Amino acid sequence: MARLAARVADLVGSPVRDMLKVAEVPGMISFAGGLPAPESFSPLDFHEAPAEVLQYGPSEGDRAFREAVAAELGAIGLPDDPDRLLILSGSQQGIDLAAKLAVEPGTRLGVQDACYLAALQVFRLFGAEFVPLASLLAGEGPAPSLAYINPTFQNPTGACAALAERQALAEACQRHDCILFEDDPYRDLDFEPVERRPVASFIDKGSFIYQGSFSKTVAPGLRLGFLTASPDLLPKLVHLKQAADLHTNRLSQWLVLQRLQAPDRLARVDANRTLYRQRRDHFAAELSRLFADLADWEAPSGGFFFWLRLKGEVDASALLPAAIRRGVLFTPGVHFEPFRIGPSPTLRLNFGYVTPEIATRGLTILADLIREDRARQAA
Amino acid sequence: MARLAARVADLVGSPVRDMLKVAEVPGMISFAGGLPAPESFSPLDFHEAPAEVLQYGPSEGDRAFREAVAAELGAIGLPDDPDRLLILSGSQQGIDLAAKLAVEPGTRLGVQDACYLAALQVFRLFGAEFVPLASLLAGEGPAPSLAYINPTFQNPTGACAALAERQALAEACQRHDCILFEDDPYRDLDFEPVERRPVASFIDKGSFIYQGSFSKTVAPGLRLGFLTASPDLLPKLVHLKQAADLHTNRLSQWLVLQRLQAPDRLARVDANRTLYRQRRDHFAAELSRLFADLADWEAPSGGFFFWLRLKGEVDASALLPAAIRRGVLFTPGVHFEPFRIGPSPTLRLNFGYVTPEIATRGLTILADLIREDRARQAA
Repeated sequence: MARLAARVADLVGSPVRDMLKVAEVPGMISFAGGLPAPESFSPLDFHEAPAEVLQYGPSEGDRAFREAVAAELGAIGLPDDPDRLLILSGSQQGIDLAAKLAVEPGTRLGVQDACYLAALQVFRLFGAEFVPLASLLAGEGPAPSLAYINPTFQNPTGACAALAERQALAEACQRHDCILFEDDPYRDLDFEPVERRPVASFIDKGSFIYQGSFSKTVAPGLRLGFLTASPDLLPKLVHLKQAADLHTNRLSQWLVLQRLQAPDRLARVDANRTLYRQRRDHFAAELSRLFADLADWEAPSGGFFFWLRLKGEVDASALLPAAIRRGVLFTPGVHFEPFRIGPSPTLRLNFGYVTPEIATRGLTILADLIREDRARQAA
Repeated sequence: MARLAARVADLVGSPVRDMLKVAEVPGMISFAGGLPAPESFSPLDFHEAPAEVLQYGPSEGDRAFREAVAAELGAIGLPDDPDRLLILSGSQQGIDLAAKLAVEPGTRLGVQDACYLAALQVFRLFGAEFVPLASLLAGEGPAPSLAYINPTFQNPTGACAALAERQALAEACQRHDCILFEDDPYRDLDFEPVERRPVASFIDKGSFIYQGSFSKTVAPGLRLGFLTASPDLLPKLVHLKQAADLHTNRLSQWLVLQRLQAPDRLARVDANRTLYRQRRDHFAAELSRLFADLADWEAPSGGFFFWLRLKGEVDASALLPAAIRRGVLFTPGVHFEPFRIGPSPTLRLNFGYVTPEIATRGLTILADLIREDRARQAA
């Protein structure tokens, strides 16, 4: 028997990734996963790709690409210095690097009551003990070493933190020497005017990591993200990046640089914003029509997700097998809830991936299923 | 002060990666790094890339690409089943995943006396204690949990293990429940007939990971590698891959699949083999002409590297600053030597990256420098 590290004893796959395989069954309607709409992709223009992208490149990322990203970060109150940037092979990698930097068995780690599940997966792998973010804000108990937040169009809840909450988070992290780790992949998919200033922009002397992604606005298949961090952390993150994969794919960096510099860049972002806003509006209307007596929710003002809390004592996970048999996939909320004990009535629905027509079909099937389940429970 | 994990307390960057920045100084002659010859790259044809490469994909890698790679592995005695394959974002990532799987503080890890430095960097990060591979072979002391080997055109020594040595390694790993981790990025750059059968192909009931790379034969900038593993390890490695970066860049997978299926594939591999053989031959001749009284070495029968042992009590590291001032970069061997105590007379020279003309220029500068240093010592 091979001798393995203790950290992999309870290792399991991501339930969302595992469901993506089911999602490939023809005709399956998928509200699971965080996939962008295929209609949101613009064709990429490879024709002028320079030969240098074929060679090894810097671990930090290609200079011209870092300059373009840094300029955008400067506009939202973050460091505008390309030397403060690290290009990532997708923002999932930033979570891996942050965990290597700050998490070992027993490390206290502040998270929201509902939190991106692939972040929980990584933090658990490195031995984190989760503490509610509310405890950090209230100053209760020993402070966590790191607080992972996704304040803008959160995955899974869709929530967007108000200004006072953002300032309070930054203040609490600084007061308790807690590293603020802000994950911000959805910020450019805003449907109404809403507070989006990075929490990290309110940090003046503390330690932070702020990361973004091109998976939702350009194409996830290119695996491209970036992080900026306080000067005490960045050099170590660069070394951890070296050790993880030497550097990020240079062709992706070049392709996305072209996109950032294209004259129609803002028009494309706007077109996607409109596409997703329309899907959000349709989904909200259909939920009101079909789920008013079945669940509670708040319409998100950006991002990809509706977060439903089913009324009554319902275990949303228990509904999934029947939903799959009827051709609909969703993600049970319990996978996102580190503090939940026992079954959860929550579920996450990605409204952005499917067309409105398919969304109606899927939501109808789901509402029928929940209604039948209720009737059976009552009988 | 941010509270960090103990593993990053002594974290340093890769000396080779740091030197790559110096290598960008115009006119610098670089024998450092493991860069392929720019002349070895063929232009990539992007024109037919399907839109699906833009979307999220499976963590294991795209099916068609796995099928093509598995067919090649089957031909060298490894599993030919695409479901036994995991596509990597470069083979450096395979080292990270293997370390997460099997290395925690105090884990005994078998390595060669000279070993790929970026592997040492990752294993150290996870707390490995290195033991000589020779102890495993001799059955001395408690057996390591994992043995990392690079038996074919080794980095840094260029050595290629004989059949008996390969069989002995496989046998020792199986006998001691030691995971065999074979790293094989150079196998297709063979200059003469030589034993290249994977050590993993001699494992019949033990645990193993075997990995390869397209960085040396197609293009490192695409960051593409793969691993196959024994059935007890593969599912955990897939989950670790999910957690690390979800999946590998799909455009790279598609591009390299086209290359694997191209009718001129073997001709291109042969052309590169010829290019590197000629550079090896030129380098060997120039070393004989310039270094006969200065160093010992064996010409490699494949791969990228000459490994020089300077004669006498010379610290090769101490020569590097003067070499850089004269415009030549090399990698001091001490970075590859986990068991070395005190200074090392070894250095690694990449003969593949520079043209023969530049190689002559660089070797001449280096030989002069060493000769002057000797004269100073003698004075």
